[in-house]
Amino acid sequence: MSLDLRIDKNKDEAAYFQIYEQIRALIIRDALEGNSKLPSIRALSKALEVNSITVINAYNMLEKERLVYKKEGSGTFVIPKGEDLLLSAEPAMYFEPGELDMELEYDEEYIDFSISSPDPKLFSIKDFRRVMNEVLEEDGAKAFMYQKSMGYTPLRDALAGYAKGYGINCSPDDVYVVSGAQQGIDIISKALVRSGDCVFVESPTYSGALAAFKSRGAKLVEVPISEDGPGIKELERLVKLFKPVLFYTMPNFHNPTGSIYSERKKRYMLLLARKHDFRILEDDYSGDLNYTDSRLLPVKAYDSNERVIYLKSFSKIFMPGFRLAYMIVPEDIRKKAADAKIASDISTSGLMQRILCKYIEKGILDKHISYLRKEFSVRYLEMVRAIKKCMRGVSFFEPKGGLNLWIKLPEAINSQELYERCKEKKVIFSPGTFYYNDGRGQDHIRMSFAASDIDRIWEGISIISMEAEKMRS
Amino acid sequence: MSLDLRIDKNKDEAAYFQIYEQIRALIIRDALEGNSKLPSIRALSKALEVNSITVINAYNMLEKERLVYKKEGSGTFVIPKGEDLLLSAEPAMYFEPGELDMELEYDEEYIDFSISSPDPKLFSIKDFRRVMNEVLEEDGAKAFMYQKSMGYTPLRDALAGYAKGYGINCSPDDVYVVSGAQQGIDIISKALVRSGDCVFVESPTYSGALAAFKSRGAKLVEVPISEDGPGIKELERLVKLFKPVLFYTMPNFHNPTGSIYSERKKRYMLLLARKHDFRILEDDYSGDLNYTDSRLLPVKAYDSNERVIYLKSFSKIFMPGFRLAYMIVPEDIRKKAADAKIASDISTSGLMQRILCKYIEKGILDKHISYLRKEFSVRYLEMVRAIKKCMRGVSFFEPKGGLNLWIKLPEAINSQELYERCKEKKVIFSPGTFYYNDGRGQDHIRMSFAASDIDRIWEGISIISMEAEKMRS
Repeated sequence: MSLDLRIDKNKDEAAYFQIYEQIRALIIRDALEGNSKLPSIRALSKALEVNSITVINAYNMLEKERLVYKKEGSGTFVIPKGEDLLLSAEPAMYFEPGELDMELEYDEEYIDFSISSPDPKLFSIKDFRRVMNEVLEEDGAKAFMYQKSMGYTPLRDALAGYAKGYGINCSPDDVYVVSGAQQGIDIISKALVRSGDCVFVESPTYSGALAAFKSRGAKLVEVPISEDGPGIKELERLVKLFKPVLFYTMPNFHNPTGSIYSERKKRYMLLLARKHDFRILEDDYSGDLNYTDSRLLPVKAYDSNERVIYLKSFSKIFMPGFRLAYMIVPEDIRKKAADAKIASDISTSGLMQRILCKYIEKGILDKHISYLRKEFSVRYLEMVRAIKKCMRGVSFFEPKGGLNLWIKLPEAINSQELYERCKEKKVIFSPGTFYYNDGRGQDHIRMSFAASDIDRIWEGISIISMEAEKMRS
Repeated sequence: MSLDLRIDKNKDEAAYFQIYEQIRALIIRDALEGNSKLPSIRALSKALEVNSITVINAYNMLEKERLVYKKEGSGTFVIPKGEDLLLSAEPAMYFEPGELDMELEYDEEYIDFSISSPDPKLFSIKDFRRVMNEVLEEDGAKAFMYQKSMGYTPLRDALAGYAKGYGINCSPDDVYVVSGAQQGIDIISKALVRSGDCVFVESPTYSGALAAFKSRGAKLVEVPISEDGPGIKELERLVKLFKPVLFYTMPNFHNPTGSIYSERKKRYMLLLARKHDFRILEDDYSGDLNYTDSRLLPVKAYDSNERVIYLKSFSKIFMPGFRLAYMIVPEDIRKKAADAKIASDISTSGLMQRILCKYIEKGILDKHISYLRKEFSVRYLEMVRAIKKCMRGVSFFEPKGGLNLWIKLPEAINSQELYERCKEKKVIFSPGTFYYNDGRGQDHIRMSFAASDIDRIWEGISIISMEAEKMRS
């Protein structure tokens, strides 16, 4: 294909921007058909007498805007109308290590609204020591041997009982212990997703999941969600169009938005999964942290056809350092999941599993969760109050549960810039861009109240609001 | 292509076997060209008026014998002569979960020669308790927060120092902590291997590595090795033919054979890696367990061009329940490895990392390794003696290090059958089939002396030899 493009050297705009604008205009007014191929980078840079980097930049901008897609080894193509929700599926990861790192190591010097696991003050070392000593007395060094890759049998028994509390009926055979929820997502990707398969994700969503799916070469399709989940008609349309193998979802207190799927939508999602033969990976990272009296069940509780793989992290309700989570896996994919677990890390630490097992058996975990729920509900309310009081022009949904608020910033304020300014003042949060694949989210920030007590919540939010005010003036 | 095949219903042989034999003959006498396509399963089953399962069985037999290969979605093809070392690369895993499980959970009732990590009796709970308490006193609940995904900084410092003891010059920035060596292999696969890429493995080799590479859709090529490593000319021929991206190798006390690469071969491998632009993943699972006075360096110690990713497990010299290993990663692939680690499990348990760090800093780990080396060297000698004395007609290489012996059985004895018989008598080991991809290894067993004391070694070996004698008569 040859396009009639021109670069005007007298114009203020850079050459790459002129190329971008002209191709963009052609696509928008339908002068270029869906799936038609753009000129190769070499050909176009030669024809326009520009550096190849110039053309690459222009194509990258078009890709970011989802007007074109790249196919490895074959070139750049126009995205057909109506399919603009298809994300690119480069096997490369999305985030810079630096970006996530900041989230990963707790530093008391900072008021940290980015980390969404409990601060260390809420964890009783005394309890831990007691439980640990009991484990060592009972099992001695046996606790340090390999465990069955599916998990330590008494823990699987305990977890099957534990899941009943969420309305999930399962047997210990259904339960797989994994080394944290991220590993659960990775294992299910290995078991179910092949290169080129389509995986649905919510938009926005948890970037660790995007990384795991992309690493498998999945095509990602975003499902827009509102406060009570995705639009039903829209979801059905997308399912028919893209035939996903998997839908990764956080239906209760969604991360980052706090959305709560209505029961009707949970049931409808199951119906679709059955009709169109895909699986649902339900990441129930904070379903226990409900600050109201109403009962919220996971999708798995409504699943009578083994469509749902249920995944529950202990990083939010216990401590992340244990690296423990569990999955409830439908029978027909259990062998694949077991193989994928072995290929991932053979088995999860037997010592940690025994400790969690004792925490559950002795009722300490339940008590701890009740304590966290109470503590977090106070922090939640204070954060809502502090933001309403201090931050001018923002808006947000009040989930009454979970660990985060998803704050829409006023137009003048860019989340990345606000982040940089606040970091200087030792206050951090997560810019909205973390939850998208392509640089969107500049207008949002995620504020977690898990790791900060009330004083720090007020102090941190007043600092953020001061910085925001400075950006307006 | 249409083949002139016939099924003779009067013959004793099953239909699938007749198909297999006829195609096999055609391939062997070069009547079918390399890479030519066999008829589709549907077409052939229709032409011969047989069930499609019959054709599938015949093709599977040809595939096992490595006369044909399958390409997903396009059919079955003849393997060109001289490329018969190319293994199939189905994304499916190899082993049945049951097969490996047996290796995974320690059961005192059995005399266990299959497990290759220390038995619990060799681990001091007292030391552990002391170290653990120090960690809790110093860091409190902070030890339970997320760590940086590359690892706990003081541990990375300690490990960089530790690696110097093996002649490896590296900085803490080069060191990545992972949750066990299997995860290290998985992470490097994610970082470097794309679907269709060629990965070299030794033959035989550790099956967990095969699983990780296959899960990435890698094409596996086997490199035959003898007591001092692969044939140099053969290796070069294979490298030129298949252009690998990675060579997974255990150059010191190879698992399962015990082979030790000569220094010349280690250096030559590096030369090839540089010349033909591939990486070496060196799994140094037991290099410390050398029972002679001669010094054995890892390949990484000779690597002046950043070709080697060095991987060291602590499961063999500490305890597997910690799920700890570390990698030394060349600078240019560090970002990819970091992304892959995040996508795998975010980070490794901070508590376990702190404990290992203290073990190293206080010199307890060094003392423990010396102790294990002494203990294992005695067990090694006793096992060699016991096998020579009790087991008639076997032969094996004496590595004078590591954790295993690779025993060639007399012709009359099949490893799988011997395994089943011995298991009844509460003695287990690893049948040789575990270390191949396709059912070979019937004539070998791997005997590990790590988890059994001297009495159990003699008792277990006398039971195995009795069962073997029964099989002869």
